Amino acid sequence: MDVVNKKRLAVDMDEVIADAISRFQEWYGRDFQLELTREAMHGKRLVDAVAPEHQAALRAYPSTEGFFRDLPVIKDSQEVLAELAQRYELFITTAAMEFPGSFLDKYNWLQQHFPFISWRNFVFCGDKSILNADYLIDDNAYNFDGFRGEGLLFDAPHNVHETRFRRVHNWREVADILL
Amino acid sequence: MDVVNKKRLAVDMDEVIADAISRFQEWYGRDFQLELTREAMHGKRLVDAVAPEHQAALRAYPSTEGFFRDLPVIKDSQEVLAELAQRYELFITTAAMEFPGSFLDKYNWLQQHFPFISWRNFVFCGDKSILNADYLIDDNAYNFDGFRGEGLLFDAPHNVHETRFRRVHNWREVADILL
Repeated sequence: MDVVNKKRLAVDMDEVIADAISRFQEWYGRDFQLELTREAMHGKRLVDAVAPEHQAALRAYPSTEGFFRDLPVIKDSQEVLAELAQRYELFITTAAMEFPGSFLDKYNWLQQHFPFISWRNFVFCGDKSILNADYLIDDNAYNFDGFRGEGLLFDAPHNVHETRFRRVHNWREVADILL
Repeated sequence: MDVVNKKRLAVDMDEVIADAISRFQEWYGRDFQLELTREAMHGKRLVDAVAPEHQAALRAYPSTEGFFRDLPVIKDSQEVLAELAQRYELFITTAAMEFPGSFLDKYNWLQQHFPFISWRNFVFCGDKSILNADYLIDDNAYNFDGFRGEGLLFDAPHNVHETRFRRVHNWREVADILL
């Protein structure tokens, strides 16, 4: 299949291929000796899942050195994206601009865990409506506002009440839809 | 005018709003006591404007600490972009992925010299065909390949022989076309 005929797939990082929630849990446990469970995050922004007096600390985590380093890879994302890379033009599109300290960690993480995706296909942005793609897999529904393609909402605790978009619960489900 | 009715303008950084050539000239002069003139660059890739034995050094410059820091601003770009920001959705779209060491310098440079553009509208990418915009102002014609909008080729020594795209010689000319 010629490259010009391939559809283009854009894929978010945090909570889609990189498990940032586990880092929040790890640091929150370290700082407050409390467990931040996925149940507590159900249907809420992460910051609303903790006590008011802990919110400022939680908000500061992603701007803190090392937050995005060595994040666990979301289950099955490597295998399914390796297959999708054969059938689609694959881009990794992350709203990294919110956390400028994350740029190099995110770049290095992608090179390490997704070596089959060229750096030419990495996009660090803010507003994702700038993306020209056919599909966007993302856990934040607001990223589908103004997006010209079809959004697939990757299931995450904070987005459980979102009903406007097609939901995918895991990478095997993405494979069933797109492969 | 409502934001949804605004056309979207994407603008490259190097040789369009940031004068990277002057940094090449500065460092080349420092390292080889030779002047790298714009005449020597006429119609050539920068690397072909120097002696073969100097090419490796020149190639390494953009990956070297500090290369993108404190670059001069291209004439009239601030004033014209401030006006364009009223009429267009304005994005800065730079192929920063080629030089990961440049991320923070580029981010800080934009914040310093173009404070009226939100970080939400910064895009660091590789392949610019991922951009969903109506216009792209860029000095590299290959960035128009697969771009869905109209490319405006910003005049630079290396692109003088390129004839496939509408050429703009300076920011006043951009203003005449887009304002």
